[in-house]
Order: sequence, then structure tokens, then C-alpha cells
Amino acid sequence: MAHFLTANTQAMKETRRRFSVDEYATRQNKTRLAMIEQNMALLIVYDPSNMCWLTGYDGWSFYVHQCVVISADGALFWFGRGIDAKGAKLTTDLNDVDIVSYPDHYVQSAQYHPMDYLADILKQGNLHLGNIGIEKDNYYFTARAAESLYTHLPDAGFIDATALVNWQRAVKSAIELKYMQRAGEVVEKVYQRIMQVAEPGMRKNALMAEVLHAQAMGTDDHYGDYASIVPLIGVGDEAAACHMTWDGEILEPDAGMFLELAGVHARYHCPCSRTLYFGEPPQKYRDIEKVINECIENVLGAFKPGNTCGEVAEIFFSNLKKHGYEKDNRCGYPIGLSYPPDWGERTMSLRKTDTTVLEAGMTFHFMPAIWFDDWGFETTESVQVTNNGGVCLSNVPRQLLEKR
Amino acid sequence: MAHFLTANTQAMKETRRRFSVDEYATRQNKTRLAMIEQNMALLIVYDPSNMCWLTGYDGWSFYVHQCVVISADGALFWFGRGIDAKGAKLTTDLNDVDIVSYPDHYVQSAQYHPMDYLADILKQGNLHLGNIGIEKDNYYFTARAAESLYTHLPDAGFIDATALVNWQRAVKSAIELKYMQRAGEVVEKVYQRIMQVAEPGMRKNALMAEVLHAQAMGTDDHYGDYASIVPLIGVGDEAAACHMTWDGEILEPDAGMFLELAGVHARYHCPCSRTLYFGEPPQKYRDIEKVINECIENVLGAFKPGNTCGEVAEIFFSNLKKHGYEKDNRCGYPIGLSYPPDWGERTMSLRKTDTTVLEAGMTFHFMPAIWFDDWGFETTESVQVTNNGGVCLSNVPRQLLEKR
Repeated sequence: MAHFLTANTQAMKETRRRFSVDEYATRQNKTRLAMIEQNMALLIVYDPSNMCWLTGYDGWSFYVHQCVVISADGALFWFGRGIDAKGAKLTTDLNDVDIVSYPDHYVQSAQYHPMDYLADILKQGNLHLGNIGIEKDNYYFTARAAESLYTHLPDAGFIDATALVNWQRAVKSAIELKYMQRAGEVVEKVYQRIMQVAEPGMRKNALMAEVLHAQAMGTDDHYGDYASIVPLIGVGDEAAACHMTWDGEILEPDAGMFLELAGVHARYHCPCSRTLYFGEPPQKYRDIEKVINECIENVLGAFKPGNTCGEVAEIFFSNLKKHGYEKDNRCGYPIGLSYPPDWGERTMSLRKTDTTVLEAGMTFHFMPAIWFDDWGFETTESVQVTNNGGVCLSNVPRQLLEKR
Repeated sequence: MAHFLTANTQAMKETRRRFSVDEYATRQNKTRLAMIEQNMALLIVYDPSNMCWLTGYDGWSFYVHQCVVISADGALFWFGRGIDAKGAKLTTDLNDVDIVSYPDHYVQSAQYHPMDYLADILKQGNLHLGNIGIEKDNYYFTARAAESLYTHLPDAGFIDATALVNWQRAVKSAIELKYMQRAGEVVEKVYQRIMQVAEPGMRKNALMAEVLHAQAMGTDDHYGDYASIVPLIGVGDEAAACHMTWDGEILEPDAGMFLELAGVHARYHCPCSRTLYFGEPPQKYRDIEKVINECIENVLGAFKPGNTCGEVAEIFFSNLKKHGYEKDNRCGYPIGLSYPPDWGERTMSLRKTDTTVLEAGMTFHFMPAIWFDDWGFETTESVQVTNNGGVCLSNVPRQLLEKR
């Protein structure tokens, strides 16, 4: 069982350390303060990004039930599948007693549910009597997981804590920003590679193979990590759809395509989209390029403390409208540490109605992408909020890319 | 609103077609029969693999709420985010009226939930009065999604339909098997590439970059698709953990590593794991290689109709035990069409207690992997159940791979 309020005596593997013991402690404390504010005694954290941010836990094990449990008064433990306990030992500073695992017959079984097992653990530790926060709208925290807890912990109160930890992640630390800048360098390399190899007659999957290779290679100094979204490519009529992935079709000459992809380092993302044209781009591409670049120039300065998400969005939408274009979907979202299926943080949105006030150190994927009925255009930037306005996290030529 | 019982007049984009209209209809009918057996009037399908299997819908949009809704008496519609409707049009045979989307302010909002919107749609269509099946333990179907439906559809009965569609997918059609064999050819190419390039001194991420490249390249004839799990690598002490991903560390000489990865074509997977050693492998690697290969030889024949999952598992575990090794986690699971975070089908498991009877055309990832305290060993095969016993879907040399 979880061992409370003891000093950690065990440490993660040195090559797997991304942040100091102090930085993790700061994050845990910040989370506990937010819990106390909401009268929450315990929080069950299912979001893999939140699990990693709080403890360092890193592994592709989120396809089974797992979580980090944190109490307002000091408990902190990892709960997961037995064969993943070793990964928890290597990537967190938790003591062995705070790495709690369930037996394998609980895995993907219709009969046994890991949350039944966790409920017992919580009862044994007397952690089942207060208000328990659960991430009700997080992928991975299923309806059945919730029901198991409701059934087995009738004395607990349950509070929706969706995004409670995500909100704590909004303002990045110096080291987080360093990782995101490295991710920015990775995405620069990816576009350099694209410009080297992309040509008409190539198959879509062959181009994406080069992208995936460059993403993982990273830079000379920093490894590239896997992205939480595979590279998306929209060619021809598929450029009007936003989230299609590659197939084996040939890339034809005189055609445009958008590329939406990220550089990643140590699980921190820097997304950056561009549009690529094989041949001489039609005037409509030139026109929209000009409009979008003007919008980006005008909006970047607004990414500063004190402005709201809605104000930033408003500047963009009204600038766009001035040129006769309407867009009704949000134009950006916060980014940072992430696991599939999303590289967004799922807190704020750059949409008119969002009143969140920006702070220095927040990071966004600003996405002035436009999809029309039969084509689309993307030039996007990942942006850090600073006192002087938005600073791009990567330096990829901000233009319609052309290859002939 | 969904348009019921009309003949389809619209068709998916030809280059995106993976199966005939008839094959999709057969799948839908099979699903409806299973629904009727369980007294279900309607089924809300959140699992992206199930959505694709039923309709063809393909896109990386599962990071927002979306589903396919199927009724026992003929309704079938896609429900998702507005900007993804175009993708649904390109990848399904659904009529425009059966591609129903919610407005963008429902995306990742604390205030508005897409299931509130769906509930209204169901009420308008009088689809809210019978028993509704929901995939209660599927990733993506969150606790809040369920609560929204419970709240807004008080006249419906709700039935747990987790894996109802997954079970219909267990026996593969001829074309599905063809895609899986192609995926098998892709994974052969991946291992050929690994044997060409892997060498001590290389960084882990550089080796994984080659794997990712080869996965996407596929074969001369068939494109490689993205895998639902990124390539896993366990080197040194990390070989004792099962689900760690790469970092930028150097691969040292005289060290072993397991590689767990898949070939993929048209979203169909063929996983295949091997262990690679740089240098002369220690005797313990040789010993376990011999044991595992003997087990695989003995177990393969048991993958035939009439045997149960438990019987297959028993043959493996007892063979292993004869050599003094114990393993308590399951030794395999069904595979096929999949989306992240898992390439398994989440129905059967190759564990002693599973009484499911095998049928010809079922496909499994047979995983006689062993993880010790400080190392691990994987030789795994993807297997098709036939009347003559298991047939491997790929032909990668079944041995400890060695590079010097």
C-alpha cells in the first residue's frame, strides 16, 4: 500500500530524468492547493500527460487502466498493471511501496475491473471517505471506470476534476520551455527534410516516411520523440478534410497539400503546419497566403499577459473577416507535454467566448487554418506568451512552400 | 438528421475504399443481429476501430467526441465535429443526411458536451425510447459522455455494449486477411531494415527512425500505415519494463534489446517482436531462445477451430513451466483493424480462464514474451487460425537476431 509522508529514498533512472525532484514536488504541491480549493481530499489522475507531469511516469501503457492517485495531505502513488510497475520504477521517484499494481487477470476483462481493485486499495488506506476528484471527461477514464468507483466507494463524494491538473500545466517552467524550443528545432529539421525530398510522383506514404524519420532523428543534440498525433496530410480534395492520414496514392504535380505535424522532444510538442505546392501555385493560394501571414503578424503581438484568449481570437477573426473570409472553429489551443491521441492541453481555446487571461510562459498552437469546400490552407505557429508578445517556438519559413 | 431506410446514393472516394458496399452491409447486419439478441434498439459506437469497421470512417479525429450510431431497424449515421464531416464524406458510403455534426463550440468545452447535442438528435428521431447500447469501457467513451446521455435521455434504458462490435470483428473476411498478410510483408521489410542498419554506437532514436521509415514505406506494392502503438524498445534494464519508448541514449555493444512493433496496411496490423543482441549473446539468451521457439512450435498447431483460448494458453504455460519458467500475464490477444492506443481487439485473451472457442479466420498476436527482473526476451508471432492449425502472418526469421 501507499506509504504516506515519507521522504523519497528511491530515484528514477538518471537517463530518464527530465525534471528535478524539486520541480516534481512543486507541481504536486500546486495540484494539492488546487484540490484543497475545491474541497477535494483525493484526486485520481487518468490523463497520461498529467500522470507524467506529476511523477515523470512515461510509457505506452495507457491502453490499459492506470492512474496516479494524489491526496491533499501527502499521499502519492502510481497504480497500474503489474508488468508496467518496472517502468514506473525506472521513470519516477516513487518508492516501491508507492508503485501499486493490479494482477493481470484484471486486464481487458469483462469480469474484473482495475477500478474495483483500486477501490479496495483506497479503502485499506482510509482514502475513501472524503471528496474524490475524477477526470470525468478524459479519454481513458471510461464510464465503467467511474461506475466501478461509484459502486465500491459509496462513502466518497465525487467531484468532476476534468482538466484540474491540465490547468496547473498551463504556465511552463524554464526547463519545459527549453524542451519546447528543442521540439521547435526538431520541426525545423523536419521541414528541411521535406523540402529536400518532396516531389511530384512520390507516394504519400513515402513522404510521410521521411517526416517520421526526421521527427525521430531530431537534431544533432536532442533526440526526437514520437508525436501524439501522426503527421497529417491533406492533398487535393482531402485538403478540405482536416484529419486524414496518408495512404499510398501518388502526389501529383500542380497540386497543393497541407502538412500538419509537430517536432517533439521529451514528450513536449511544437506543432507547425505549412502548405506545400508542387508547381506554380494558383492565385487563390497566393491570396490566402498573404491574408494568413498578415493575420499572424497582427495576432502574434497580442499573445501577452493580460489579454484574454477571446481577445486574441477576436483580433484574428476580425482581421480575417476584413478580407472576406469566415471561420467558425477555434483558432488555437494550449500545448506542451502530451500523449496520444492529442497534443493539445484541453483547457483554454482560442475562441471568442474564452475569457481566460494569458500569462507569461503559456504556450499555444495558434492555428489560423482555413478549410474550404474543396481545398484547404494551413500556416500555423506554436507561440510562447511573453511580456513583449508572442514568440514563435520554431523558425520554419512562414510561407507557402513550393517545389517544382 | 439521419435519414432512415433509404438506399445509399453516395459513395466514398474510390482511392479510400477498403471494402465493398456489400461487406460493410454484412458487418452492419451482423451487428444488428447481435443487438437484437441483446434487446438493444440502438447502439452508440465510440471505438474508432468499430466506427471504421462498420462504415469505413478513417481519420485522426478520435481526440474529440465522435461516434457511429446504428439502430436495430435500419438507421446508421456518423456523428462528429463539423470540420470532420468532410472526412466522413470521403471515407464512408453514408448519405450527406447521415453525416451529422456538432458545432465547434462543443469541442473541449467545460460547458457544452457533444453528447448533449447527440441526445437532442436522438430525441428528434424518436430513437431515445428503447434500450441503448453504450461502450462503457472503451477509451474515448468518457464518464461524462455517459452522464450526459443518462441525464438527457431519461426514457432510454442503457445496456453495456462494450466490445459488442469488437466481437463481430473476431473472424476476418478474405479481404481482411489479405490486408493482414500485406501487413505481415511490411513487418518483414522492417526487420530487414533493422538488420541492415542496427549497430552498437547508434542512438535509440536513430534506430527507431529507421523502423518508422520502413513501417510507412511498406512494400513495393502496398503502402505502410501508421501503427496503433509506436515501436517499443527495451534495452538493458529497460528490457525488464514492457512498454517504454525510445530516448536518445546510445545502444551499447554486448547488450540485448527487445523490439515490439507491427507492420500495418490499411489500418490492419501484424505485430511481430524479436530480440536483438549486439555481440555474442550470453548463454541465458540462447537458453531462453530455445525454450521460446520450442513453445511456439508446440503452440502453433493448437490454433485451430474447436480449441479454446484457455487450451492454447495452457499448452504454452505448461510447456514453459517444464523448463522452469513461470509467466502470469496473458500470452496473447486478437488483432486486426485498429487505432491508437492499442492494436488488440479487446475481446478474448490467451489466458487459462478464457473459454472462447477458436474459429477459422480468427487472428491473434501470440506473445510468449518473458520479462525478468533485469532483462527481457520477446519472440512473438501474429497467427491466423486455420483448420490445419496456426499460420503465421509474417515470415521474420524466428530467432535471436544478432549483429556484431
